[in-house]
Amino acid sequence: VTYPDPPAAARSAGAPEPIGLWLVGARGNVATVVAVAQAAIARGIAPPVGMATASAALRDVALAPLDAIRLGGHDIGDRGVVDTARALAATDRLFDPTLVDAVAGELAALEREIRPGVTALSADDRDGAARLAAIQRDLRAFADAHRLARVVVVNVASTESPLAAPLPATAAGLAAAVRDGGVAVPASVLYAYAALDLGFGYVNFTPSTGSSIPALEELAVARGAVHAGRDGKTGETLLKSALAPMFAVRNLRVLSWFGQNILGNPDGLTLTDPAHRGSKERSKASVVPSILGYAPEAPVRIDYVGALGDWKIAWDHILFEGLLGSRMSLQLVWQGADSILAAPLVLDLARLVDRALARGETGALAHLAVFFKDPLGSDEHRLERQWAMLLEHLGVDPR
Amino acid sequence: VTYPDPPAAARSAGAPEPIGLWLVGARGNVATVVAVAQAAIARGIAPPVGMATASAALRDVALAPLDAIRLGGHDIGDRGVVDTARALAATDRLFDPTLVDAVAGELAALEREIRPGVTALSADDRDGAARLAAIQRDLRAFADAHRLARVVVVNVASTESPLAAPLPATAAGLAAAVRDGGVAVPASVLYAYAALDLGFGYVNFTPSTGSSIPALEELAVARGAVHAGRDGKTGETLLKSALAPMFAVRNLRVLSWFGQNILGNPDGLTLTDPAHRGSKERSKASVVPSILGYAPEAPVRIDYVGALGDWKIAWDHILFEGLLGSRMSLQLVWQGADSILAAPLVLDLARLVDRALARGETGALAHLAVFFKDPLGSDEHRLERQWAMLLEHLGVDPR
Amino acid sequence: VTYPDPPAAARSAGAPEPIGLWLVGARGNVATVVAVAQAAIARGIAPPVGMATASAALRDVALAPLDAIRLGGHDIGDRGVVDTARALAATDRLFDPTLVDAVAGELAALEREIRPGVTALSADDRDGAARLAAIQRDLRAFADAHRLARVVVVNVASTESPLAAPLPATAAGLAAAVRDGGVAVPASVLYAYAALDLGFGYVNFTPSTGSSIPALEELAVARGAVHAGRDGKTGETLLKSALAPMFAVRNLRVLSWFGQNILGNPDGLTLTDPAHRGSKERSKASVVPSILGYAPEAPVRIDYVGALGDWKIAWDHILFEGLLGSRMSLQLVWQGADSILAAPLVLDLARLVDRALARGETGALAHLAVFFKDPLGSDEHRLERQWAMLLEHLGVDPR
Amino acid sequence: VTYPDPPAAARSAGAPEPIGLWLVGARGNVATVVAVAQAAIARGIAPPVGMATASAALRDVALAPLDAIRLGGHDIGDRGVVDTARALAATDRLFDPTLVDAVAGELAALEREIRPGVTALSADDRDGAARLAAIQRDLRAFADAHRLARVVVVNVASTESPLAAPLPATAAGLAAAVRDGGVAVPASVLYAYAALDLGFGYVNFTPSTGSSIPALEELAVARGAVHAGRDGKTGETLLKSALAPMFAVRNLRVLSWFGQNILGNPDGLTLTDPAHRGSKERSKASVVPSILGYAPEAPVRIDYVGALGDWKIAWDHILFEGLLGSRMSLQLVWQGADSILAAPLVLDLARLVDRALARGETGALAHLAVFFKDPLGSDEHRLERQWAMLLEHLGVDPR
Repeated sequence: VTYPDPPAAARSAGAPEPIGLWLVGARGNVATVVAVAQAAIARGIAPPVGMATASAALRDVALAPLDAIRLGGHDIGDRGVVDTARALAATDRLFDPTLVDAVAGELAALEREIRPGVTALSADDRDGAARLAAIQRDLRAFADAHRLARVVVVNVASTESPLAAPLPATAAGLAAAVRDGGVAVPASVLYAYAALDLGFGYVNFTPSTGSSIPALEELAVARGAVHAGRDGKTGETLLKSALAPMFAVRNLRVLSWFGQNILGNPDGLTLTDPAHRGSKERSKASVVPSILGYAPEAPVRIDYVGALGDWKIAWDHILFEGLLGSRMSLQLVWQGADSILAAPLVLDLARLVDRALARGETGALAHLAVFFKDPLGSDEHRLERQWAMLLEHLGVDPR
Repeated sequence: VTYPDPPAAARSAGAPEPIGLWLVGARGNVATVVAVAQAAIARGIAPPVGMATASAALRDVALAPLDAIRLGGHDIGDRGVVDTARALAATDRLFDPTLVDAVAGELAALEREIRPGVTALSADDRDGAARLAAIQRDLRAFADAHRLARVVVVNVASTESPLAAPLPATAAGLAAAVRDGGVAVPASVLYAYAALDLGFGYVNFTPSTGSSIPALEELAVARGAVHAGRDGKTGETLLKSALAPMFAVRNLRVLSWFGQNILGNPDGLTLTDPAHRGSKERSKASVVPSILGYAPEAPVRIDYVGALGDWKIAWDHILFEGLLGSRMSLQLVWQGADSILAAPLVLDLARLVDRALARGETGALAHLAVFFKDPLGSDEHRLERQWAMLLEHLGVDPR
Repeated sequence: VTYPDPPAAARSAGAPEPIGLWLVGARGNVATVVAVAQAAIARGIAPPVGMATASAALRDVALAPLDAIRLGGHDIGDRGVVDTARALAATDRLFDPTLVDAVAGELAALEREIRPGVTALSADDRDGAARLAAIQRDLRAFADAHRLARVVVVNVASTESPLAAPLPATAAGLAAAVRDGGVAVPASVLYAYAALDLGFGYVNFTPSTGSSIPALEELAVARGAVHAGRDGKTGETLLKSALAPMFAVRNLRVLSWFGQNILGNPDGLTLTDPAHRGSKERSKASVVPSILGYAPEAPVRIDYVGALGDWKIAWDHILFEGLLGSRMSLQLVWQGADSILAAPLVLDLARLVDRALARGETGALAHLAVFFKDPLGSDEHRLERQWAMLLEHLGVDPR
Repeated sequence: VTYPDPPAAARSAGAPEPIGLWLVGARGNVATVVAVAQAAIARGIAPPVGMATASAALRDVALAPLDAIRLGGHDIGDRGVVDTARALAATDRLFDPTLVDAVAGELAALEREIRPGVTALSADDRDGAARLAAIQRDLRAFADAHRLARVVVVNVASTESPLAAPLPATAAGLAAAVRDGGVAVPASVLYAYAALDLGFGYVNFTPSTGSSIPALEELAVARGAVHAGRDGKTGETLLKSALAPMFAVRNLRVLSWFGQNILGNPDGLTLTDPAHRGSKERSKASVVPSILGYAPEAPVRIDYVGALGDWKIAWDHILFEGLLGSRMSLQLVWQGADSILAAPLVLDLARLVDRALARGETGALAHLAVFFKDPLGSDEHRLERQWAMLLEHLGVDPR
C-alpha cells in the first residue's frame, strides 16, 4: 500500500501555535500509542490511517497540525511509556519493534511531562480541594512551560465503577461536595472539573462519569470551556451504529442482538470486576434500541482472555425475522487492536476540540457524537447521521 | 413477537382503485413468495415485515393498498405456483406449510393470469416485432380485464448472460433492431421495451440488461413511463452498502474485501454458468470502490450448493489497515432466504413505482436507488444516503 | 436426500420383547422429541438420522428394536406433550407441524404414562423414604403393566444446582440420609437411587448429580444395575472433543479457548441462575485440559436469548501459538437444535444400556463415554478414542 | 507462555551424526521458515511448537537432533533467503524482525548450498538424462561435502499442473521416457527420481506429482529408498480430517461441506491458474467422502487475495441433517500462516524419514499419513487413526 501524499495536517508551515494534549492515564496503552503515532505521523514515517481528520472529507478543514501538539499527562502507575510501547510491539505485534527506537525522543518528552495522578474521593475524604488544586497546578505548569495557546484534557484511564450515589446537580453543589465531602467523587469527575474550571477542553474517552453530569455542563458554559464524550466508539458499538440502520431501512425485525467481546489488556482485566463492567455494558446498551425504535433482547458481554493482549475479538449474533415468520441471522466477527483504533481518534478529538475552543464554542460538543458510544448532547446513534452532523458543523459538503 | 397495529397500507377503505403487478418469471420462487405474502398480509395473517413501505418512516405515505394489487405474469416454465409454494414450505421451511392452503385462492388467481413468456432474439431472428406484440397483447388484456389504473412490470426471471454486443443507443435504433434483427436482444430488453412503450412502469429486479440502456430511457421519457433497477439489493451487497461507509468515516484503509456467496435455488444453478455469473458479479462489484473512493482487492464469488435450497449464506472477509501498519479484520456471515428477502421489496417497488406513474414522473427513478445493487440514474451506494434520498423524494422528514 | 434402506433396528421381526424407557422430565423438549422421533422412525416416516446405533458401524449390533420400547416418565409440569410438540414445530420449525398429527397416538400413549414427579429433599425434610417409595411404585407399575423385560430410566429434566454439601460416601449412608434427613438430596439422586435399587438401568443426560456419587456406584453393583452419564455431549463440547486432539497431534499450543453458548429454551432459562449455570459450566470445563495435557485459559459462557427457542448457537474462539511466537486462530460457529440432537442419543442410550442389563453387566458403563461431557468411569475425552472404546466393547471392528 | 524444558530433540549430546535435508524450492517461504526455525530452535531461542516430533507423545523417540541437520536445496528463483525472511517478518509479521539477524549465519549457510533447479521436460525435450544427472551431481556433492549419513529431499516448490498424460508404469519405462522423451515429465518427478535412485529419502510436501506414481514406488523399493507424501496437511484439510469423523460417530448426515480458502503468497498466485488449482483442489477432495462413506456436495475453492501475504483464511460451511429433517450447520474460520504451519512438519518429516532410512525400511511410508492430504500407501484420512498408526509404528503407547 502506498499513500499518495504526505498528510497536510501532520506538518505545519512556519512556526505553529503550540497546543496541549493532556492525557489522564498517560502511561496506558492508548496514551502510549497516541505518542508513538503522533511522532511517527509527524515525522512522515507512518501515514495517518485511522484519523478521521486526515480523511479525504476532512483533510482541508483548518486544524492544528500534529507537530504543534505537546503531550503531557497524569498517571498513577509507574511502568514507563517506552516499556509499554516495547511490550505492545513485541507481544501483541501492534507495530514494528524498531519504531520504538525511531520515536524514542518523543516518548521521552512525554515521560518528562507525566505527573502523579489523584484517586477518587470517598465520602469521608476532606481533601478534595487540595487534590483539585494539585491537578490544576500541573495543568497550568504544562501550559506555561510550553506557552500553549489552548489545552485539551483527554481521559484514557481505566474504567471506573458507576456512581454509587448521584452527584450534586449544580456547579456550586459539586464544588461544595468536593471541598467538604459527604459524597464519593470519582477521579474522572475531579479531572473534568479541573480542566473545565480552567477553561480548557475536556474529552472523556472512557465509560467513566467524567463530565457527563449537569453540574459540569453548567461549569463548562460558565467558564467558556467545551467538553465531549463519552466512551470512544472503536469496535463492536461502531459496527452496531453502522449496521442497525440497515434493519430499520429494510423493516426487518431484530429479535435478538447478542454481543460478546473478549480482550486481554488491562482495561479488560478491570472489566472482570462486575461493577466496572456495569459501566461499560451500560454505555454500549442504548445504541441498538435507539436506532431501531424498539428494544430487542440485546445482551452485551465482556470477558477477559489474557492471551489476547491488546487485541479484542467481538462476536455479534443477530437474529431477525423476515416475511412470513422466517428467521434469518447475521453474524459479525471483529478482530481489532483496541489501542490502535483508539489512538487516532484521540488525536482527532484533540484537534477538533481545540478548534471549538479557538472559535469560542462552549459546553457539550454534540457534533462530535460520531466518536462516542454514549454521546454528550445528542441522542443520535446512526453512524452516517452522526458523520453528516460533523460535516455540517465543520461546513463541509457531505457529497 | 406481536405487532402493534394491523398495517394501514395493507387494507384499503372503500373500493380501492385496482392496479396491476405483472411478474416476468411468475412461477419462480420470488414471484411465488410475492403472491403468498401479498395474500397473507392483505388478509392480516402475516405482518408486513421486510416491506420498507410498511416501516414506521413510510407507513403514512399514500400508496396503493396491498389488496388493490392484481397479479399476473409471464413464465416459460410449467411448474405451478402452488407446487413451488409447497416446496418452499416443506424443504426450505421458509413458511408454515399450512399457509399455502390458507391462500390457495390467491395463488390460483395468479396462476390464471400467467401467460407463456418469450425468449431472447438471436441476431438471426426476424420475428422480434411479433414477440413484442405478443407481450403487449398480454399486458393490455390483463389491464383491461381488471380495469387497472396503472400496471408495473417487474422482472424476477433468471439472470441472463451479459450482452454479447452493444445494443443501439436510440429508441428508434432499438426498434429497428427488434424488427429487423442483426443483433441479439435479450428477453429482459423485450419485456422492458413492451412495458415502457405502453407507458407502464418497469422494474428490473435482476442483473439482466432490462431497461438499463439509453435507448429505453429515451423511450420511457417519450412515453411518460417510469423505470427502476437493477438487481435487488437483498443480501451481501446490502451489507456492504451499510458497512463500507464505516471504514470511510474512520479513515481505515480496506486492503481486501472478499465475498463468497453460496446458494441452492434455481437462480444459483443458473449462476454456475460462468457467463451468467459474470452479470451478477459485475452488478455487485461497484459498491465498495464507489463508497471508499479507491479500489481494494474485492473479489466476489458465487457458488451453487444445492442442499441450501432457497437459503443463501454469504461470508465476507474484510482485511483493513489501521494505524502503524497494523492489520485488522471484520468478517460477516449472512444467512438469509433469498425469496423471503426479495418479495417484500417487489411489493414496495410496485407501490412506489405506481405512485410515480400516478404523479406523472418519467424516466429512471433515481430515488429508488436504495433498493438496488446497481441503481439506475444514481451512483450513490451508501445505504443511509440512499434512504435519505427516498425520504426526501417522498416528503418525509428523515428524523 | 434418500436413505438406502429402512432401518433394520427400527422394526422388530415377530413379537419383540418389550422394554421400558422412563423419562424423568417427560414433558420437556427432549422427551417430547424422543417420543415424536421414536414413533416417526418406527413407522418409517423418518430415517434414524442422529442415532449412533443406526450408523453403518453399529447397525448390525443386536439391540432392542425401536418399536419394542415403551415410554413413560415423571414430570412436575403440566403442559402436555402434544402442546410441547406443536410449539417446537411451529415456532422453532424443528419438524413439520403435520408430523405431530401423524404420531398423535404415540404421544397420547406417553401422556397416559406420565406420573407427578418429586422434588429435592432439603436437609430438614423427613419424608425421603416416602418419596423414594413413590418413585419406585410408579416404576414398578409401569414395568408390570407392559410386562417389560427391562427398564432404563433417563434423566432429561432441568439442570439442578451443584451439591451444596457432599453426600454420604456409602450406599448405607445415603439410604440413612434419605430416610432421616440432615443433608439436602437433589431430586436427580432420588430418581437414580430408585432406579438402581430396583436393578434397572439409569442414565443421567444432564449435568445434575444423578448417579455420579460413590454411594450409587456401590448400590448399582450390589443390585446388578448399570448406569451411565453425565451430561449428553451434543454441541460445543462434542466439537471440542473432536477438535482438541488436532492441536495435540500437531503440537500447536492452545493459548485460549473461549466458548460462548446462547440458547432460548427452558433449559437455557434455568441456566440464567448462576447456581445452575455452575453445574453446566463445570461439566464442560474438563474436556480441553484433559485432552491437551495442560490448561489454557478456557472460559465457557452460557447466556439465555429467548428468541432462539430450542436453537443453540455456540461460538468458540481458539487462539493458538505456532512456531516462532506466531499467533493463529480457529473459530467455530455451531447452529443446532438442542432437543433434536439430544433425542436420538437418548434412544441410543436406552438400547445400549438395555443391552448391558441383558448381558449382566453392572455398575458404571465406561464404554458409553462417547455420549457424555463428563463420562462416568472414564477420563477419556477424545471423541475418536471414545468411539473406539464403544466399538471394542460391542465387538465391532473399527475399520 | 513458558515452556517447561529445553527440547531434548533439538540438541545432540556429543558429536551427532550429520544428516542432510535438501529442499526443492529452497528460497521459497516454507524453506525459509524451515531454516529460520531450525536455527532458532537449535539455539534455544524458540521452542519447537508445531513439531509433532517434539510433542509429549513423541519426544522420547530416538530421532536425529535438529542441530545435526544440514540444509541445502535447489531453486529457480534468485531472491535470497535472507530477503524472503525479512519480508515475512516485516509485512506478514510472522516472527520478530530481529530474529533474522540472530540466525543470519544459518541462513547464509543455506544460501551457500542452493543450486539452480531444473524445469519440467516437455514431450519434445531430449536432455532428460542430463537434467537428472545434474540433480544427482548436486545431491552427491552436498552429501560428500558434509559427510552426511543420509539425505532426505523434500519438495516445497510451487504447485505444478496435473499430469497432461499418464507416465510409464514401470521404473524402466520411466527411465526410458526421461532419457528419450516422448512424454512430458514434471520437474517434481525428476527430483523424486533423482533422490530415490540414489537411495535417499524423498518427501512430496506439495500436490504436484512427485513420487506418487507406480514407477517410482518400484524404483524406491529397488534402491532401498523411502518416500512419503503428498501435500502437507496444514490447514483446512487438517480440520476436515479432525472433524468429519464427528459426523460419522453421531450419524448426522452431511448435506454439503463448502470450503473456501483465501491466501496471498506466491503459492496462492500460482493457484489462480485454473490448471494448477486443479491439482490442489483434487488433493483436498477425497478427505470428506473417504471419512463419511458417502459423498456430500463438497466444493473446495481457493482464491488469491494478495493483501493477505502468507496468511491463509479458510471458511468452511457444513450443512447437515439431523433427526426429523432438521437442518443444522457448523462453520469454521481458520486464520493461519501457511509457512509457519508447514515448516515444523518439514522438520518432523526429515527426522522421521531419516529414521526409516536408518532402519532399512523401503518404499512408501504409510505410517506418515498423518502429515498429508493425500497420503501415499494409505487411504486412512481420520486424523486420530492416522496418529495412532504413527504411534504404533514408532512403538509408542497411544495412551
